[in-house]
Amino acid sequence: MKFDEVNEFRKRAGKMMNAAGIVLTEEESRDIEVADMGLGRLAKEGLELVTYINTDRYCAKELVILPGQTCPEHRHPPVSGESGKQETFRCRWGEVWLYVEGERTEPMQASIPQASRTHYTVFHEIVLKPGEQYTIPPNTLHWFQAGRQGAVVSEFSSRSRDESDIFTNPHIRREPVISE
Amino acid sequence: MKFDEVNEFRKRAGKMMNAAGIVLTEEESRDIEVADMGLGRLAKEGLELVTYINTDRYCAKELVILPGQTCPEHRHPPVSGESGKQETFRCRWGEVWLYVEGERTEPMQASIPQASRTHYTVFHEIVLKPGEQYTIPPNTLHWFQAGRQGAVVSEFSSRSRDESDIFTNPHIRREPVISE
Repeated sequence: MKFDEVNEFRKRAGKMMNAAGIVLTEEESRDIEVADMGLGRLAKEGLELVTYINTDRYCAKELVILPGQTCPEHRHPPVSGESGKQETFRCRWGEVWLYVEGERTEPMQASIPQASRTHYTVFHEIVLKPGEQYTIPPNTLHWFQAGRQGAVVSEFSSRSRDESDIFTNPHIRREPVISE
Repeated sequence: MKFDEVNEFRKRAGKMMNAAGIVLTEEESRDIEVADMGLGRLAKEGLELVTYINTDRYCAKELVILPGQTCPEHRHPPVSGESGKQETFRCRWGEVWLYVEGERTEPMQASIPQASRTHYTVFHEIVLKPGEQYTIPPNTLHWFQAGRQGAVVSEFSSRSRDESDIFTNPHIRREPVISE
């Protein structure tokens, strides 16, 4: 990722959290994580987030999905004998379309990112508007996209181990590489 | 607690969450928990809350502390071999004064509720403004009060077992009793 691009997406995410009434400290604003998953097409596939707390017992994050962005399909497998990450998504602002394993929803609201279309394989749709939430069981494939305005989503979960996530797209690297 | 009083506090808490930009579903608004801890003086000692999710691994709640209200001193002990509840308080709106074990802060901002003053024993003050957070270790005595406007606080934690909480005041019953 280019430094300027990261900065631009960070600013856009900060503005959206602000619109949602979410207050961040200066340090949190400066450090908003911009994840392009190593795909180099942040406008299409990626996510912005702030991790408030991540202990060996629980985790809480604020996620921003910008208009047009999709968080690629993945699952949270068991690690070291501990069940995979279980997570609850609560929509705070905007609208988010979440896809999980189960009966295919037709027609669905999201547009699958064309450059990666074979790496999206689950199509059971859950629509979340502000105040609505959904809990994703451990080790369940899921991906999500926001509605026209984007979305801000609170994630409450068991311990987060991003480095263990299994993405359907084998080209994805969850850890960021930032260049000047 | 009288039904009318519960209703009044529920409404006030709902308004404060609204001011904080927190969106609740209709059902959540109707069911805001009003906890007087069995003391019968809700304006002085009590709390309003919405539990978003509570699994055997993690829990997330939205807490409202109305102006003048104090959440009485308590701790979360180990249960069935599991370490006590660990919790992170993140102030979303208003200002909250949290007291934990440690060096006494003098002068402190909170006024100790006079009817229960002997049941407050820890006075190390943590001030949280919007965007600020603090993590309370398991089994640590703590209590909290809001500033002049009240406060809305997100609580992220390990599993919540309210019925196991140990309050310093032996008259406290955490489970509510509501009369017509």
